Amino acid sequence: MRTFEEYLDKLRTMRPNIYMGGKKISRDDPQLLGPMNNIKLTFDLARQSQYQGLLTATSHLSGKEINRFTHIHRSAEDLLKKQEMTRTLCRLTPACVQRCMGADMLNAMSVFTQEIDQTRGTEYYPRFQEYLKYFQENDLVGCAGQTDVKGDRKLRPHQQQDPDLYLRIVERRNDGIVVRGAKAHNSIAAYADEILVTPTRLLTKEEADWAVAFAIPADAPGVRQVVVTSSPRVRKKLKAPVAEFGSCHSLSIFEDTFIPKERVFMCGEWEFGGRAASLFALYHRHSYTGCKPAFSDIIMGSTALVAEYNGVEGAQHINHKLADLISVAELVYGAGIAAAVKAKPSSSGTYIPDVVFCNVGRRHAGESLYHEYQILCDVAGGLPATLPYEEDFYLEETGSLLHKYIMRKSSINPENQHRCFRLIHDLIGSSFGAHRQIAGLHGGGSPIMEVIALLGNYDLKKRKEMAKYLAGIEKK
Amino acid sequence: MRTFEEYLDKLRTMRPNIYMGGKKISRDDPQLLGPMNNIKLTFDLARQSQYQGLLTATSHLSGKEINRFTHIHRSAEDLLKKQEMTRTLCRLTPACVQRCMGADMLNAMSVFTQEIDQTRGTEYYPRFQEYLKYFQENDLVGCAGQTDVKGDRKLRPHQQQDPDLYLRIVERRNDGIVVRGAKAHNSIAAYADEILVTPTRLLTKEEADWAVAFAIPADAPGVRQVVVTSSPRVRKKLKAPVAEFGSCHSLSIFEDTFIPKERVFMCGEWEFGGRAASLFALYHRHSYTGCKPAFSDIIMGSTALVAEYNGVEGAQHINHKLADLISVAELVYGAGIAAAVKAKPSSSGTYIPDVVFCNVGRRHAGESLYHEYQILCDVAGGLPATLPYEEDFYLEETGSLLHKYIMRKSSINPENQHRCFRLIHDLIGSSFGAHRQIAGLHGGGSPIMEVIALLGNYDLKKRKEMAKYLAGIEKK
Amino acid sequence: MRTFEEYLDKLRTMRPNIYMGGKKISRDDPQLLGPMNNIKLTFDLARQSQYQGLLTATSHLSGKEINRFTHIHRSAEDLLKKQEMTRTLCRLTPACVQRCMGADMLNAMSVFTQEIDQTRGTEYYPRFQEYLKYFQENDLVGCAGQTDVKGDRKLRPHQQQDPDLYLRIVERRNDGIVVRGAKAHNSIAAYADEILVTPTRLLTKEEADWAVAFAIPADAPGVRQVVVTSSPRVRKKLKAPVAEFGSCHSLSIFEDTFIPKERVFMCGEWEFGGRAASLFALYHRHSYTGCKPAFSDIIMGSTALVAEYNGVEGAQHINHKLADLISVAELVYGAGIAAAVKAKPSSSGTYIPDVVFCNVGRRHAGESLYHEYQILCDVAGGLPATLPYEEDFYLEETGSLLHKYIMRKSSINPENQHRCFRLIHDLIGSSFGAHRQIAGLHGGGSPIMEVIALLGNYDLKKRKEMAKYLAGIEKK
Amino acid sequence: MRTFEEYLDKLRTMRPNIYMGGKKISRDDPQLLGPMNNIKLTFDLARQSQYQGLLTATSHLSGKEINRFTHIHRSAEDLLKKQEMTRTLCRLTPACVQRCMGADMLNAMSVFTQEIDQTRGTEYYPRFQEYLKYFQENDLVGCAGQTDVKGDRKLRPHQQQDPDLYLRIVERRNDGIVVRGAKAHNSIAAYADEILVTPTRLLTKEEADWAVAFAIPADAPGVRQVVVTSSPRVRKKLKAPVAEFGSCHSLSIFEDTFIPKERVFMCGEWEFGGRAASLFALYHRHSYTGCKPAFSDIIMGSTALVAEYNGVEGAQHINHKLADLISVAELVYGAGIAAAVKAKPSSSGTYIPDVVFCNVGRRHAGESLYHEYQILCDVAGGLPATLPYEEDFYLEETGSLLHKYIMRKSSINPENQHRCFRLIHDLIGSSFGAHRQIAGLHGGGSPIMEVIALLGNYDLKKRKEMAKYLAGIEKK
Repeated sequence: MRTFEEYLDKLRTMRPNIYMGGKKISRDDPQLLGPMNNIKLTFDLARQSQYQGLLTATSHLSGKEINRFTHIHRSAEDLLKKQEMTRTLCRLTPACVQRCMGADMLNAMSVFTQEIDQTRGTEYYPRFQEYLKYFQENDLVGCAGQTDVKGDRKLRPHQQQDPDLYLRIVERRNDGIVVRGAKAHNSIAAYADEILVTPTRLLTKEEADWAVAFAIPADAPGVRQVVVTSSPRVRKKLKAPVAEFGSCHSLSIFEDTFIPKERVFMCGEWEFGGRAASLFALYHRHSYTGCKPAFSDIIMGSTALVAEYNGVEGAQHINHKLADLISVAELVYGAGIAAAVKAKPSSSGTYIPDVVFCNVGRRHAGESLYHEYQILCDVAGGLPATLPYEEDFYLEETGSLLHKYIMRKSSINPENQHRCFRLIHDLIGSSFGAHRQIAGLHGGGSPIMEVIALLGNYDLKKRKEMAKYLAGIEKK
Repeated sequence: MRTFEEYLDKLRTMRPNIYMGGKKISRDDPQLLGPMNNIKLTFDLARQSQYQGLLTATSHLSGKEINRFTHIHRSAEDLLKKQEMTRTLCRLTPACVQRCMGADMLNAMSVFTQEIDQTRGTEYYPRFQEYLKYFQENDLVGCAGQTDVKGDRKLRPHQQQDPDLYLRIVERRNDGIVVRGAKAHNSIAAYADEILVTPTRLLTKEEADWAVAFAIPADAPGVRQVVVTSSPRVRKKLKAPVAEFGSCHSLSIFEDTFIPKERVFMCGEWEFGGRAASLFALYHRHSYTGCKPAFSDIIMGSTALVAEYNGVEGAQHINHKLADLISVAELVYGAGIAAAVKAKPSSSGTYIPDVVFCNVGRRHAGESLYHEYQILCDVAGGLPATLPYEEDFYLEETGSLLHKYIMRKSSINPENQHRCFRLIHDLIGSSFGAHRQIAGLHGGGSPIMEVIALLGNYDLKKRKEMAKYLAGIEKK
Repeated sequence: MRTFEEYLDKLRTMRPNIYMGGKKISRDDPQLLGPMNNIKLTFDLARQSQYQGLLTATSHLSGKEINRFTHIHRSAEDLLKKQEMTRTLCRLTPACVQRCMGADMLNAMSVFTQEIDQTRGTEYYPRFQEYLKYFQENDLVGCAGQTDVKGDRKLRPHQQQDPDLYLRIVERRNDGIVVRGAKAHNSIAAYADEILVTPTRLLTKEEADWAVAFAIPADAPGVRQVVVTSSPRVRKKLKAPVAEFGSCHSLSIFEDTFIPKERVFMCGEWEFGGRAASLFALYHRHSYTGCKPAFSDIIMGSTALVAEYNGVEGAQHINHKLADLISVAELVYGAGIAAAVKAKPSSSGTYIPDVVFCNVGRRHAGESLYHEYQILCDVAGGLPATLPYEEDFYLEETGSLLHKYIMRKSSINPENQHRCFRLIHDLIGSSFGAHRQIAGLHGGGSPIMEVIALLGNYDLKKRKEMAKYLAGIEKK
Repeated sequence: MRTFEEYLDKLRTMRPNIYMGGKKISRDDPQLLGPMNNIKLTFDLARQSQYQGLLTATSHLSGKEINRFTHIHRSAEDLLKKQEMTRTLCRLTPACVQRCMGADMLNAMSVFTQEIDQTRGTEYYPRFQEYLKYFQENDLVGCAGQTDVKGDRKLRPHQQQDPDLYLRIVERRNDGIVVRGAKAHNSIAAYADEILVTPTRLLTKEEADWAVAFAIPADAPGVRQVVVTSSPRVRKKLKAPVAEFGSCHSLSIFEDTFIPKERVFMCGEWEFGGRAASLFALYHRHSYTGCKPAFSDIIMGSTALVAEYNGVEGAQHINHKLADLISVAELVYGAGIAAAVKAKPSSSGTYIPDVVFCNVGRRHAGESLYHEYQILCDVAGGLPATLPYEEDFYLEETGSLLHKYIMRKSSINPENQHRCFRLIHDLIGSSFGAHRQIAGLHGGGSPIMEVIALLGNYDLKKRKEMAKYLAGIEKK
């Protein structure tokens, strides 16, 4: 397993293809540091003995200890561990641990490559296993390039005026393929080693060119990333972990990029487009049942903390609000546990979590998110919006006045009062907070996607039969 | 294991002590038949091979096959089975299967009797085990007498003007005790073999007389039950399973009732009052994670059915409503699975489900219930309220007109249209439906009780530490 | 203005055409008494001096004082008065005052008859005015026959397999027309003097035969009503106003009924079908902004009362729930005031309330209703479901025990505790309560109907222009 | 009436006492320009003929035409006009028009000064009228200094360890008073002419020193402001109105500030502390019934626009979401209309809007806000969070790629697609958006403040009497 420093050293050798704010930037640009600190957690903690077995796993390929973020789930227990690991890490960062992106995609690939082989007689699965060995041995960071930009939502991929609005194969060669298109909302791509790509939706017969899955280094020739980041305002004096992290998303553009054969995991098998899309979504929604409760933990802890500082701790309406937050966290976490317990092995032996529990969990998380923000905002009061800038707390003419007037309970010193409200400002009153809201609603699939997944997978017919039975309507 | 007939025969021999509507009635009064039909399911299906292992279990005392409703959970697997059994049975009756009352209380007693013994050096647990053997061998039906009438909610038991407003010991003898008081909302007591009694709340030192747990035949001298039932209107021609069931609750009054020593399981150990109360509540809330999803299944199936009959099946707003119902059902069920998986053995070896998952599950069920009714009502339209009486469908002067005008889709015959809307009338437009709403909100503990349970058991301090860590506030 | 006795005497002379529970019943059948008591309020109170000007109005036709329920709104002030009258009366009955049905339909007719005349050169408006004079002079009670049974919701009226599933003209004569079909959910028709009929939806050119509006005595030859009623259980000893009222709905069937010419107000003018339907809906939704807040008042008062009796008055979570109820009541009432204030005169001089405010008000009432029931249920606890029958409180063997154990605060006597919980049982735990839920959701138009009305009438384009302006997108 | 330029010229002459980001800044600092642009609207549009009578009013003191933001409401009509003006202006800025702060405080002062005089025999009202003349003649901009920093919420003002945590009189002189303390969340103070100060809560006898109201120039000696602003990111090329505005709040600190006698409007009359606080809150909540619907208009327009651009316009779930937004907007606006219509004159002749309607309106706005954001976010998808920076759209190496891949419907050009999503980013994905959320929840009083106001002002007793009447419980 690599150290964070080794990971960083590798990034520094990569070809600069990152654009941000009208400039090309290097991968060790300070603006990327916050986002990268999430990844740092996954390297650092995996080396600590207390996290062994949780952040690490034993590779079913090599038998070696590997970072769990590179592991393929071979049991329900693996899924439970993944969920627990995710919650554990996501409690340490307000920006989510992010490295699940690659893990979830690897697991999806480990399923559908074998399924294609079984149907089509291809050899994607052994090819993928070779790649996986390389990935595990080098302890790589992968990102998931799934969401196409999609153009006109009412048109299918092959009906778009511009066929590139879904990423597609533009050339097939003996040694590989050439692809063109763009993957949107491509989290962590700017500091990932590898971009892992699959289709984003069901495809039809005419859409074989859009049925493509592969892995490619994030700096490969023909790849260009346009990047946005979002971090809490950098602290000058009032250093705090919350402000050390950030989010980062790329629009990853493939301009006739060559993908070598040994890295191609689907190539024209259009009937597996939807399967690939839904498998990644499923693994990722299961990850949400780990990370989202952790974010609720942070919201809940901040709510409890500011209630204490404001002196309203224990008030009945505060308690009811805390119970609302507990419910969201644990209903979602419970759904994830149930999804793991009810998981079933795929033909390749990779365990697939239960689709209904994953989707009700993710949906509830998404539907509840704004309400959670509202609760923290409600209890904190208006100060997270009107808190003077950090610098004014350290300016001679204003500092002591601000420390005087921020006082609440006299048992809490002014700096801690300041720290508490700046934390909450970062969480709910900053561009970072706003960004996290949107990410929390749409990441891993918007609530409407879960509605679609549920209706497609739930046995409603069986429930109608129950109603008919009770009504005395005969089955046909 | 008994047959339903044997159970009924036994009831017929019991002393009449049931009052209803201003009359004393016998235990085979037709008004009790609907409610008893729920119990019938538990006898009948336990004898069917397909339910073996689900509705039956192996007694850890006798090693014999017993009805699972008399079983003590000795593993997480037992709890999962209990939950699955409950959902399975509750899909067959709109009135809940009811026999969980006794099962949940037996399990609670199997925990706290041992805990008292370990602390106080008493011998309740071996005494309880003897009783349990008797209970299992005779395949008895128990009910749970927990909720006292409670008088002035602002006063403690010993502060009430009338000390009997919480059931209490009025005399201690060598061969037993004499108790006085009443247990409210005492489901199924009118056709139970046994009433199992515990305290309903935390008690203080002054309240040793209120710390009492025991089992007593439901017709014992000094026990009087005042009963209410609620069933769908009896069908004359349009027979249907939905109308064959009902609910029944007693106010069970103990007028200086003698309890023999071997049936007393707590007697003065006030510090275990709260423990006993919360243990029964916990097991019962776990049962709710099985029965409540089944009721959601019925609501969901009826919604899907009436949508089809009304010709709006597949409309987007219908789909979203169905997804809402699926979410409620499976979040609650998932929480129950997680509670079972995370269960831990008590000192007597009985498994206790996780308190947080049980409570978020039950609370979500309770908080969502009225919304579920609203959805079914919304999709069904006004007809469940204004559907003419069954008789008018069979009267010469009106029958053919009603069958003419109830027509919706021509592919569905008028009788089935009638059946569908009468089902929904029974579910949401009848006194039975209204009764089930209230029962569904309060049974097993009102939502506010779960708020209290959650706040008392959840590690909020740990979440505050997370917030402090992120804010850079030092731990003290 | 008539007295209630005079109204009743008239009913007794009417031809028996009411069927209920498999029997033909007379109009003074005791089962109809509860429902009729709502109408009684409108006669009795109109004669009391304190309600003069509120329950009475000055006819713009005759200049005489008339019951406001027969009045045409000639100003915004009239609409404000109608709303206030409705709230005032509906606070006195749990079953709604009901007589608004006819009033709302008369107002709708007073608008569209004139509009048809102006477009088609017909003479419906003068004809309607003659009818109105008769109606006002005789202080009649009208009901609104609008909702057709509608058959297959996916098919238009003329596409139905059975063309009678929407009421239609089957013959045109010189002296009138013959109609066939049925009007569903026809509130108060069983004890109305007159049935006022309009189309229920937009019609197309092929549907001239379905474009028909008229007034007809409720016992006219060829009219048959199949009726359901819903009342609280009749009290034997514990008499209380809540139990004196009830609801009643008819399926009013027109079996080739002759309508004399002078009572026909639309006959073939299909392009006015939608207008007529939406006008009645609009006036009726405005009535809801008066009656629904009154029902919230009753729920709210009951919640506050039971909180006091339970001894939890003033608890913070009770206060928040009461504030929720206040908000529903006054947002809906406020929307009704705004609708009246922004009303505009039609071509006939009748004032039409603002369509947006009426619809947001009615929709909020509908969407909030189940939540209101949940609040009262939550605060009351389980007793409204398990309260022993009235008779058991007066039986020697159980009466004193029940009065002993119902005690809560010692300052409240047991009979009043009993009264409080029986009231709440009647409101939320009875078939009457269940019926009111459904009526409250769908009466006057289900929430989805208001969504449709809002989207059809709201200037969304203007809001899009605002967004475009802010975005810097040029108008086209 | 002044022009914006005249207003700006005046600001430039004011003493610099504004601190921001660790520096003292002048009042024409570019960071304040966005916020000031809101005020600019009030000057510019008041001079346009189409807004005459809406943005202008006739002074009841001078009879001259004045800006309505300096006007005292002398009728219900004035309140309706104020509400309409507010909605009209707030549709033109995403940051609220802001100048209502001073208007609402002037109106509050015009009421309580007279009430104090009548009780205490003081002469505040004539003094205030003199001040008002000066204010109207000079067309001033006022801000409202009401909210104290409040210290420990469990302690009263005089119990705080530091008595300055509520602003107080530290010295009484013949020619005026000296005050010390700070007013938080002091919107627009940085570019207001005047700060208008009142107490923030009920006061007790011991708290006469905290009972103080006055007006003072915002740059008076002894006044220091620490300021935060929040604006959308400045546009370089893609200019758009949305990005021209901003918010600004001060912590206004009074360091032994002298207030001349003629500007003091309360001085020790502690029994009017609560009255003053609630009057300002009331007027301001009424203003919210104008501005909040305008913000809903913007959210709604943006939702409809992005639905069109995404090609999902007209989908049923979109329509339901739009109906939700319409309901929020119009229920709140309707409540404001009702509050105006039911307004009553105070002893000074100033009209006071109805307290119940104002509070249910403001509360509903606050409680619905996060849900409105959720809707826009839901419909817009993830792009508002991951939209590349403006600069990257104009960089040679990335610009054409971004314009290629942002394409949705081919009938909308890429720049407009870009504009649409940048607008939504500014509204929901930026620090400005996050800030507006918090301001929208707490500004004018957090939802819990409205709960308190409602429970304090609503006639619950009357509703309990209704319940008692229906239950047959006799009044005492």
